[in-house]
Amino acid sequence: MATNGTNSTNGTNGTNGAQKSAHRFDPDFTQAVIDNMGPKTTPRNRQVLGALIRHIHDFSREVELTIDEWMTGVHFINAVGQIYGDSNKTRNEAHRISDVLGLESLVDEIAHKIVSEGELDPTSSSILGPFWSPNAPFRNIGGSIIQDGVPPNGRVTKMWGVITDMTTGKPIPNAVFDIWQASANGKYDFQDPDNQSPNNLRGKFRADNEGRYWFYCLHPTAYSLPQDGPSWDLLTLMDRHPMRPAHIHIMVTHPDFQGCTTQLYPNDDPWLTTDTVFAVKPDLVVDFKPLKGDATATLELEYNVFLAPKGYKGKL
Amino acid sequence: MATNGTNSTNGTNGTNGAQKSAHRFDPDFTQAVIDNMGPKTTPRNRQVLGALIRHIHDFSREVELTIDEWMTGVHFINAVGQIYGDSNKTRNEAHRISDVLGLESLVDEIAHKIVSEGELDPTSSSILGPFWSPNAPFRNIGGSIIQDGVPPNGRVTKMWGVITDMTTGKPIPNAVFDIWQASANGKYDFQDPDNQSPNNLRGKFRADNEGRYWFYCLHPTAYSLPQDGPSWDLLTLMDRHPMRPAHIHIMVTHPDFQGCTTQLYPNDDPWLTTDTVFAVKPDLVVDFKPLKGDATATLELEYNVFLAPKGYKGKL
Repeated sequence: MATNGTNSTNGTNGTNGAQKSAHRFDPDFTQAVIDNMGPKTTPRNRQVLGALIRHIHDFSREVELTIDEWMTGVHFINAVGQIYGDSNKTRNEAHRISDVLGLESLVDEIAHKIVSEGELDPTSSSILGPFWSPNAPFRNIGGSIIQDGVPPNGRVTKMWGVITDMTTGKPIPNAVFDIWQASANGKYDFQDPDNQSPNNLRGKFRADNEGRYWFYCLHPTAYSLPQDGPSWDLLTLMDRHPMRPAHIHIMVTHPDFQGCTTQLYPNDDPWLTTDTVFAVKPDLVVDFKPLKGDATATLELEYNVFLAPKGYKGKL
Repeated sequence: MATNGTNSTNGTNGTNGAQKSAHRFDPDFTQAVIDNMGPKTTPRNRQVLGALIRHIHDFSREVELTIDEWMTGVHFINAVGQIYGDSNKTRNEAHRISDVLGLESLVDEIAHKIVSEGELDPTSSSILGPFWSPNAPFRNIGGSIIQDGVPPNGRVTKMWGVITDMTTGKPIPNAVFDIWQASANGKYDFQDPDNQSPNNLRGKFRADNEGRYWFYCLHPTAYSLPQDGPSWDLLTLMDRHPMRPAHIHIMVTHPDFQGCTTQLYPNDDPWLTTDTVFAVKPDLVVDFKPLKGDATATLELEYNVFLAPKGYKGKL
């Protein structure tokens, strides 16, 4: 016969010690889920997924998540992937959700901290974002990434600097300086096929024998994240604005050095302190200066990059 | 001029006290993300999303999540929604991921605990799962949910019992007993359109004036979760089997009572202790008995359901 009616639900006997269970729910449930992992789970997967399960469960117990709220979350997660469709092949909504929750910035901090916990620091990293392209072409040093003409309200900037070994102060010849940026309408090339050709406002430059680079780009423009879809719904729930401060993305690499992916922000941008993806760091805020005597540009930006040699661990 | 090179990254000055920061990363970052929520955020959203952000960040710092691992997670979340497509309109992968991680069972425990923390307990709840249909038809009491004929290996069961007010012991006339189950091939109607018509093995029955219900169904069959897609990838990473023990889903409701959604498990099922969605509870394990003298069924299952009146809070 069924044992129904006399309910001996697990969870009512929370007598396994206060340390193990600071809540009134089954003190053994979460560990049972974690321990269900089999012997062929790799040690790292066991660590990462075990911690993930524990934090998801702790979160749910802490707020006493209701069934309706959980179901809202299920629909939300499904919607994140569903927005990627025939008309949205370039949309990476899970990446954007990560950014809005500060997760990409945090993961970047973790990676950067592991590299840089020494006495010397390389140039600060910042998040990659969803708009980097592996297909950006090499351009000649001194060239321009403005391939489609200067857009209305565009301000041409001569950007230049030196890429240096942070441990020796010596320049790094042949370092690759990869830059990408939105146009003056706040859109990247592949978001804006009607106005921009592929690789407009993208390019790679190889530093000269003195580690120097220089080229023309635009003064960057602040823009909004998309105002539709799950990330917009989440921002709305949190009563947050969708603005990123104006920024230039750069990725500087060399085979003998640890690469640096980062972003640079004009120091007069109004969104610096409330960047909706939390990617601003003090040493990444820069000063665009008026430039005289250049036929192409009206502004200049000097930016010097400091890289750590591969294997450099600082004091670790 | 740029301030590059002299790196004053936030995070290197972790001097806000050990309580606030038991780790070596920026002690203020997570609170800054949470505090970015605006004044129009509802108090509950602030609580839930604030805790979610804190646990996601704590998880990432605890395991020192790498950029590659984070990116793997981004692709995984995108894939969850993307599997829902033209050929998969009934697939709810986020729901299944929740189940595999024990989250739906935990949320069910939380809801049930809030209802039942009194001296009396209603019938234990269990997870809804992704296969309930709002469109199941009412059938006449004593009828059968086996609409498409008994499948090979199917064992017809007469299921019967009484639905009772747990506080008074009195029957609940007109309570609705909603049942759904997979066929003997382990598939629900809408997973199996070639073999099953819509609403095969589903039905609602209205209890009589003595709170009694009875009808014919199948002895349930254990089945595997889908062996493709993100949930299968996750199970594989965790070296876990994809099996659910055999079960019958029921949902019992009445306007004056708190509804009960649960599942019943044959006591001889080999997967009871390792259910891949962690939904088995002791009082839901039942005994199917041989039945003599019934022209339709060879087995019987008595199951009595105890409901709490609306507003009943026990000792709370």
